[in-house]
Amino acid sequence: MQPVPLADRRPIELKECFADPSLDVMNFLNEVVLDYPDAISFAPGRPHESSFDVEAHVAQMTRYVEERARAAGSTAGAAWRALGQYNRTKGIIVEPIAKHLKMDEGIDVPPDAIIVTVGAQEAMAILLAGLFDPRYDLMLVSDPSYIGITGLARIMGVRTVPVPAGDDGISADAVEAAIVEASRTGRARAFYDIPDFNNPLGTSLPVRERCRLLEVCDRHGLLVIEDNPYGMFVYEGERPPTLKALDRRGAVLYVGTFSKTIFPSLRVGYLVADQRVASGALLADELSRVKSLLTVNTSTLSQAVVAQVLFESGGSIEPLAARQRALCKRNLDALLAALRTSFARTNDVRWNTPRGGFFLTLSLPFEFGGDEVRACAAEFGVIVCPMQWFSLRGDRRHQVRLSFSYVEPDRIADGIRRLARFVDDRTKGGRA
Amino acid sequence: MQPVPLADRRPIELKECFADPSLDVMNFLNEVVLDYPDAISFAPGRPHESSFDVEAHVAQMTRYVEERARAAGSTAGAAWRALGQYNRTKGIIVEPIAKHLKMDEGIDVPPDAIIVTVGAQEAMAILLAGLFDPRYDLMLVSDPSYIGITGLARIMGVRTVPVPAGDDGISADAVEAAIVEASRTGRARAFYDIPDFNNPLGTSLPVRERCRLLEVCDRHGLLVIEDNPYGMFVYEGERPPTLKALDRRGAVLYVGTFSKTIFPSLRVGYLVADQRVASGALLADELSRVKSLLTVNTSTLSQAVVAQVLFESGGSIEPLAARQRALCKRNLDALLAALRTSFARTNDVRWNTPRGGFFLTLSLPFEFGGDEVRACAAEFGVIVCPMQWFSLRGDRRHQVRLSFSYVEPDRIADGIRRLARFVDDRTKGGRA
Repeated sequence: MQPVPLADRRPIELKECFADPSLDVMNFLNEVVLDYPDAISFAPGRPHESSFDVEAHVAQMTRYVEERARAAGSTAGAAWRALGQYNRTKGIIVEPIAKHLKMDEGIDVPPDAIIVTVGAQEAMAILLAGLFDPRYDLMLVSDPSYIGITGLARIMGVRTVPVPAGDDGISADAVEAAIVEASRTGRARAFYDIPDFNNPLGTSLPVRERCRLLEVCDRHGLLVIEDNPYGMFVYEGERPPTLKALDRRGAVLYVGTFSKTIFPSLRVGYLVADQRVASGALLADELSRVKSLLTVNTSTLSQAVVAQVLFESGGSIEPLAARQRALCKRNLDALLAALRTSFARTNDVRWNTPRGGFFLTLSLPFEFGGDEVRACAAEFGVIVCPMQWFSLRGDRRHQVRLSFSYVEPDRIADGIRRLARFVDDRTKGGRA
Repeated sequence: MQPVPLADRRPIELKECFADPSLDVMNFLNEVVLDYPDAISFAPGRPHESSFDVEAHVAQMTRYVEERARAAGSTAGAAWRALGQYNRTKGIIVEPIAKHLKMDEGIDVPPDAIIVTVGAQEAMAILLAGLFDPRYDLMLVSDPSYIGITGLARIMGVRTVPVPAGDDGISADAVEAAIVEASRTGRARAFYDIPDFNNPLGTSLPVRERCRLLEVCDRHGLLVIEDNPYGMFVYEGERPPTLKALDRRGAVLYVGTFSKTIFPSLRVGYLVADQRVASGALLADELSRVKSLLTVNTSTLSQAVVAQVLFESGGSIEPLAARQRALCKRNLDALLAALRTSFARTNDVRWNTPRGGFFLTLSLPFEFGGDEVRACAAEFGVIVCPMQWFSLRGDRRHQVRLSFSYVEPDRIADGIRRLARFVDDRTKGGRA
């Protein structure tokens, strides 16, 4: 029997949510640099490769396995084979991660409150699948927001409620107003934010606002999901304590990752859930059941790399973070200088000055959307990301997100000159 | 400020579905061998470690990277660094997987119809999140069923409809009856099965029934999810073609894994979705958006291992599968011999004779549930898994699943003797 010609086959019907263009943004950010290899890209929030030491990390796995064998009193061969097998759902490196959290983040939690995940993204999937009943639970998110949380909520049918951010991120008052508003149509279950060097805005939430936020969420019985991929990348001033470090009532679920400090394709992140459920069980144990159904385990090869990195630096991720941080700070300085130079003659182009992280907000005198991305890439050879793509309320149409972590430093000035030419073209051409 | 004492904190409320005991089975299977280290375990469906060659596979990554560098005309250092970065959502080894599918499974699909996933489990999560709207879509599953699909459906709010399996697996008539029944309460969207050496039953679906199943599903507009982790493990007779190899109308979504052939903690599986959606786009491209939101990428270290394994064996996984297969066949032979010996004097204990895979069904003269698992492990030092845990309809209370892949061959006879003593104790003690 011959296959039925494609034209005669029924096309597969997709879920409604696939029509939502926001679902394309993750793929766009992941793939656009591959599609326009010659353009200078300020789009993806990726770490710079020059700090990666993949070959050395892979070689270090041997040391990790030898240490495991020594600890277990087994042969290296047996330890290698054991490394290949299924293992604890919560992961095999929760102890070193707990130590790292204490040393680097001021977060003191027992190892069994940690679930090792396939990047921070799986931690979010676990939280959404485990804590939100789409029939009535609502998730509040700072707006504009990381597309990985809002897109995931869309796919999983969880309704989101935007909390508008200002120049320093969200305010506790705005969160409270959103809670009150949300309570009319469902149960406000949790508030999601990236307080440290926000993606996409580049803002840092002031300490006072962090304390007030925890107070407000506690008063209304909300959990707080703190996503902290960029906390180690502080360039100026003292780093404020994480929400989790300030958390006194067990309201904060903390999501971390080694994607930006070691390398992304490891796919190792983690979820901290040290709360208790009604039975007295640890929330992490309950949520590990969701993990077992999403991916079963996190790659132990990848976990071994993380464990060895932490072991060799005495428990801290700081030595590796320092390398990436130096690259990013140099890039941010170059970007700020380039912006000052290229936009010296206009008051219509403004930007913020992030004190850390990977991102900067640039405001333009005209709307910047998908057409502008393509025109800018094709005609001017520079890629930037419209801020409106991250906005649930569809605002911030005049802003773009500049990611400065990934671009080659010697191309930053050139990239911003190209962007300035595009801006010039749009404004002079009367199309603004 | 001091932390609030635990007793004063509000416990976290879980979603209703956490009360479902079926959610514990995945964790049980994954962790029970760690909890009863001295018991002989016929519980978890894991491959035997003695065929793992983790150290060699890790060392081979270097060859993979050198080859990538050669192909890209770059240095090995640049290729290593590129390996550390985010990459194509669908994965970087879709070509070798397409070649393997053609050589080993008779499945001929273009590489871009493949999504590399974090084990087969993520492939199922992508399908459930991407294709099922919990408000009206229903998933039919062969019953008893792999707990990873039914548990996932439960977490994601997707309703399942059991299709009772017989001695050779499901029948197309039973599937059709379930479709008709399901259509009263929702839309029957897809049928899920493991036709080759079923988990948990150990059955193999006859070719004629495969063809009829495809016919029935096509007539009613259902997709078929074919999960095939055990197809390479055939011990007797000729292996029937996969549903995907028989598929002429593009009804079958195919899920594969390297967990049983290379090693599980790699966490590399894949989803084949060569269908088209209404826009003309490949279904795999649409579903990759779900992947980008669940885990972003599959670990490239793990992908590199798979690529190199396939490259070194000319594209086929057969050389590695052969090693694990020989172990499993030897174990199955030992198990069948042990069953014949230990249960020679009773007609009340029966079992099937699987022609492949990891599992065998054993029928007992009394009900076997959670209490029996614990009693059997604690008092008799042997772990088996109640078949009722896999049953959506709550039947098969007198059966257990014996997994023979993981147990040490010299412990099989001893384990079955222990089980026979437990059976003896229960039947003689009048507790049957």
